Amino acid sequence: MENFSLDPKLESDTIKLGEFDLSLLLLMDNALVPWFILVPKLNASELYELDADQQLMLWTEINTISEFLKEELHVDKINVAAIGNVVPQLHVHVIGRYTDDFAWPHTVWGRIEREEYEPVKFENLAGLLQKFLENKTILETI
Amino acid sequence: MENFSLDPKLESDTIKLGEFDLSLLLLMDNALVPWFILVPKLNASELYELDADQQLMLWTEINTISEFLKEELHVDKINVAAIGNVVPQLHVHVIGRYTDDFAWPHTVWGRIEREEYEPVKFENLAGLLQKFLENKTILETI
Repeated sequence: MENFSLDPKLESDTIKLGEFDLSLLLLMDNALVPWFILVPKLNASELYELDADQQLMLWTEINTISEFLKEELHVDKINVAAIGNVVPQLHVHVIGRYTDDFAWPHTVWGRIEREEYEPVKFENLAGLLQKFLENKTILETI
Repeated sequence: MENFSLDPKLESDTIKLGEFDLSLLLLMDNALVPWFILVPKLNASELYELDADQQLMLWTEINTISEFLKEELHVDKINVAAIGNVVPQLHVHVIGRYTDDFAWPHTVWGRIEREEYEPVKFENLAGLLQKFLENKTILETI
């Protein structure tokens, strides 16, 4: 779409998990909290620049990740945000928060604490997500 | 709707500007940045709990405030976020940011800097918004 290319900082900070209809699905390489990032594959900086169809797709993708966080990871709260002060390419954070995580109740942006994913922990999370998405697709098409 | 009542902390931190179809429109009483908060008038804590119609209404309201921030206040960036770690009642921050504001490029949540609105400054902002919303409504119904 529109000669889209992922911002280099987003690329270096994250692990690519896959693609939805509108967005790339990335995982912040910080195992301290389950921190997903959706990047619409188009040239935009603000949410309101998306047209109605694109906004609906993005909202659906946010909902899907939110449900995964609640149903599979049993998070206590979900933080959803489009900020972009540092990386202007439109991207939406969908972060699962626990009342005992490293930053609670504060937000996680700008914090320096970080723990790279161990391969096993990453594979477990990616596998759980893949299974969730497959089941969801099946359920929606029955 | 659903015996909705505004969370006391949101009420004490903000000035009520008005109501959209879905949400109350509040202004954070901090003149350091133009900081709006939309509170859907229903009992929810997470965005994904809204049904499709409610999500569409909320997205439309976020768009409207975003356009106001860009077109009338000429902000450099918009920060949109549903966090709710402290106040669980669903509310969406729509904040205009300037590259020379007090916190740029950091986020504004959890910062202690604050400046109450002078009455004249508040009236100017509220008047500008009211005019913008009236024009928008007229334009949309022509």
